[in-house]
Amino acid sequence: MTPFNPEVLKSGKTRERRERALAVLSAALEAVDPVKAIKRQVSLSDDSLHIGQRVYDLGRYRNIYVIGGGKAGGSMAQAIEEILGQRVTAGLVNVKYGYGAETEIVRLNEAGHPIPDAAGMAGTKQMAELARKATDEDLVICLISGGGSALMPLPVEGITLADVKSLTDALLRCGATINEINAVRKHLSQIKGGNLARLAHPAEIVSLILSDVVGSPLDVIASGPTVPDTTTFADAYGVIEKYGLLEELPRPIVERLRRGKEGVIPETPKEGTEYFTRTYNLIIASNEVAAEAATTRAEELGFHTLLLSTFVEGEAREVAKVFAAVAKEIINSGRPLPRPACVVAGGETTVTVRGSGLGGRNQEMALSAALEIAGLEDVMIIPLASDGTDGPTDAAGAIADGSTLRRAQEAGLSATQYLANNDSYHFFQQLGDLLITGPTNTNVNDLTFTFVF
Amino acid sequence: MTPFNPEVLKSGKTRERRERALAVLSAALEAVDPVKAIKRQVSLSDDSLHIGQRVYDLGRYRNIYVIGGGKAGGSMAQAIEEILGQRVTAGLVNVKYGYGAETEIVRLNEAGHPIPDAAGMAGTKQMAELARKATDEDLVICLISGGGSALMPLPVEGITLADVKSLTDALLRCGATINEINAVRKHLSQIKGGNLARLAHPAEIVSLILSDVVGSPLDVIASGPTVPDTTTFADAYGVIEKYGLLEELPRPIVERLRRGKEGVIPETPKEGTEYFTRTYNLIIASNEVAAEAATTRAEELGFHTLLLSTFVEGEAREVAKVFAAVAKEIINSGRPLPRPACVVAGGETTVTVRGSGLGGRNQEMALSAALEIAGLEDVMIIPLASDGTDGPTDAAGAIADGSTLRRAQEAGLSATQYLANNDSYHFFQQLGDLLITGPTNTNVNDLTFTFVF
Repeated sequence: MTPFNPEVLKSGKTRERRERALAVLSAALEAVDPVKAIKRQVSLSDDSLHIGQRVYDLGRYRNIYVIGGGKAGGSMAQAIEEILGQRVTAGLVNVKYGYGAETEIVRLNEAGHPIPDAAGMAGTKQMAELARKATDEDLVICLISGGGSALMPLPVEGITLADVKSLTDALLRCGATINEINAVRKHLSQIKGGNLARLAHPAEIVSLILSDVVGSPLDVIASGPTVPDTTTFADAYGVIEKYGLLEELPRPIVERLRRGKEGVIPETPKEGTEYFTRTYNLIIASNEVAAEAATTRAEELGFHTLLLSTFVEGEAREVAKVFAAVAKEIINSGRPLPRPACVVAGGETTVTVRGSGLGGRNQEMALSAALEIAGLEDVMIIPLASDGTDGPTDAAGAIADGSTLRRAQEAGLSATQYLANNDSYHFFQQLGDLLITGPTNTNVNDLTFTFVF
Repeated sequence: MTPFNPEVLKSGKTRERRERALAVLSAALEAVDPVKAIKRQVSLSDDSLHIGQRVYDLGRYRNIYVIGGGKAGGSMAQAIEEILGQRVTAGLVNVKYGYGAETEIVRLNEAGHPIPDAAGMAGTKQMAELARKATDEDLVICLISGGGSALMPLPVEGITLADVKSLTDALLRCGATINEINAVRKHLSQIKGGNLARLAHPAEIVSLILSDVVGSPLDVIASGPTVPDTTTFADAYGVIEKYGLLEELPRPIVERLRRGKEGVIPETPKEGTEYFTRTYNLIIASNEVAAEAATTRAEELGFHTLLLSTFVEGEAREVAKVFAAVAKEIINSGRPLPRPACVVAGGETTVTVRGSGLGGRNQEMALSAALEIAGLEDVMIIPLASDGTDGPTDAAGAIADGSTLRRAQEAGLSATQYLANNDSYHFFQQLGDLLITGPTNTNVNDLTFTFVF
C-alpha cells in the first residue's frame, strides 16, 4: 500500500509507528495522483459528462478538444482518454522531456522545462490553432498542471522566446516579485493571463487544474491561461519602469507594453467579459486536497488531527522549529491536541544554501526538526515533497524522530555540521531515514506531518 | 484597562479591533504580573498559609526567611510582605540595578545583571548564611525570577567570579550548548543546581518561581537553586574535555571538576535525596499562564481560540511566516478555526542581525508578518515581549495588519528595506504602530497573537 522504500520502516515499535505514519502520507499522495484526481471529479454516464458540480450534455457538442501543458499532462491526458475514449476529437498537450505517456488521440508533445524551447512553442502554436477553430458547438478541455507556464510558451507576434527570457532574467536580477514578473509576461503572451480562453471563445471551456502554487490562486497556476487577468498593461509597463528597464529590454517588449498602456492594443481578458461566461476552472488536486485526505486517513487510524495551514512558507530550518514547538506543546499539555496526534501542514519552504552538501527543503526541514525534538521519543516529523523529488535528490523527504540525534551520534554524524553544510540527504541516507517514492507524476508542493504518539 | 500607549488604537473600525486585540494582550500581562501572580497562588487565613495546592501551618515555624534573586524580585518581595507582614523574620533578595522597590523587612540588594558582580556576590553570601542558619522549625521562601542566575552568584571557595566568567566565555566561544554550560556552572556554585536547597536543609523550603525560560524547565530557571540537579561532575568534566579546555581554563575550576568526577567532592543534590523532601517548587507565572489567560479572555470577547504552542523558537522573520500561513488558512477555509479567530503562541524567537537598524525580535516578527499579510484587511498579528522591552528598544512589540504595507507605501517606507536593515522599530514608529507598555516588572518570554476578524 505504501509507495515508499520499505527499508525505511525499520523494525519493532519503530516499524509499527512508521507504518501508521506512512499510511497517512500515502493517503495524501493518492488523493493528488492525477489519474485518480481526474476520475474523482470527471465521469461519464451516457451522454452526461460530470465535471465537478457541473454536467455537460455531450449531445450538444460536435467536437471535444483536449489541450494543455504541465508536468502531469501525460497522466491527465490518459485519464481523460480513459473516460471519454473516442469521443475526443483531437488533442495536444505539452509535457516535459521524458514525461511522455501512452495516449491514443491526444498527442503528447515533449518540450523544454523550466526553460521554454522551440518544441514547446511549436506545440503551443498547434494548441492555439485547435482553440481558435473551436466553435460554440465545441468543448475544449484544458489540462493544466505545474510547469504549464514554461511548457506553453507562445509570445505574441514580433516577440521571441529569447526576448521573454532576457526580460525574465532582467526582472529577477532587479529583485522583482513573481507577481510583477507575471504581470509583464501575461501581456506578452497569446496563452497566459486568460488569452487561451479568448482564443477558444465561443467554445465551452473546462480547465482541469492540478495546482502547484501555494494557496492555489487560479490566475497564477501556469499563468492562468483560462482565468481572468487582474493585471493591466499599465501595471506591466509600471513594473519595467520601476526597475529602470525601459532602455535595457528588447524594443519590441517595451513598445508593446507602451502601446498597450496607451490603449492601442486590447487588454488581456478581464473578469466579466464574454470570454469567461462559458469557462469553468476546476482545481482537481492541490495541496489542500492532499492535506485533507491525510487528515481523514489519520483520523481513521486513531489520531487526533489538526490541519494547521496549507500556506506554509519560509526558511525550511526555521519553519521546522515551529512544528517541533507544536509537538512539545502536545507532549507538555495535550494542547492543541491530545495524543496520539497528527498535525498536517502544507506549503513550500525555501532553503538559503550556504554549504556545499546535497539536500532539499524537506530533508533540511527534517534535519532541523531532528535537532529540536532530540530525546522526545514519541515525536516524529516528516516533511514530504509531493512530486517525489525534494531538491536535486532522489528522495521525497526524510523521517525525523526523537531518536534521530542519538542514532546519528552513535554513527558518528554531527547533525549540526550536516545542517550547516546543507547536507541533509547524506545525513538521512546514512541513518536509513530517507523517504524514496520515485516520481509521483503529481506536484502539489510539500506537506509536513507532525506525529506525537 | 489597557496598559498600552493609547495612540496605537487609532480610530474608527481600526480602533474597535485594536481595542479588542489589546484587551487580550492585557489579560496575558495581568496574569503574569508578579504581585498578582503571587496573590493568586499565596494567601493567608489565620495561621494557614496557602501556597498553590499546599497549606502550611505557620504555628509550626519559628522563623520565615525570604531570599532569592531575579529581575522581578522587588515586586515579588513586596507581594510576600503584603501577605505575611510582620511574620517575615528577615530576608534578602538580589535585584538588578534600578529594580529596587519599597519593602519593610526583606532587604532588596541591587546587583549586576547580566554580568554578575561583587554586590551580587555579597548579597548571595548573606542569603546563604540565612539559609544555613535555618532549622527544621523554619520556613524559607525563595523568590526566583528571570536573571536569577546572574543575580545570585556564589562560586565555591577557591573560585572567583572572574574564573567563572572566563569559563563561560570559553564555552560560548567553543559553541557549547546552554545545557552544557549550565552543567559545568552548577558544579562550581554554592547556590545553583539544588545547592541552595542543601544549604537551607532541613528547613521547609518553598520556591515561588516566575519562569523566563521557554517550556519552564525547573532545573534551568535561574539554574535551579532548589531543584534536583540532573547533571553530574562527570558530565561537567566531560564538557570541558570535549571542547579541549583542560589546559586553558583556570586551574581551580579544572581541579574541582576532576576531583568531583573522582568522587572526592560531594555531588550536587539529586532527586530523591533528603534535600527535597521538604522542598516545594511552584511556578507562579510563566509563558503558559500568560497564554492561557489570553486565550480565556479572547473567548470571552467572542473569538474562537487556539493555543498553538508555548515553545516557539526560531528566526523571528521566518516564524512570522508560519503565523501568517495560519491566518491565510483561516481566511481561506475557516480552518483550523472559524472567524473571528485568535491564535495564541508563546516562546522566544531570535534575530540574526545583519543590518544596522533598531529593533527587537517581536518588532521584527511583526514587520515580516506585515509583508506576508499585506492586503488581508481582516488579519492582525501582534508579537509582544512580556517584559515590555523588546530588544534594545522602549517598545514591547508592534501591531502588523493587512493595511500595514499600504500605509507604509503611502508614507514612502519600504518594508523590505527596513526588514533587511533590522530596523523594525523605526518602521513601526513612523506608522504609529509600536506597542509601548514601559517595564512590566515581569518576564515570561514572548507571545504572538494572530487575529482574524
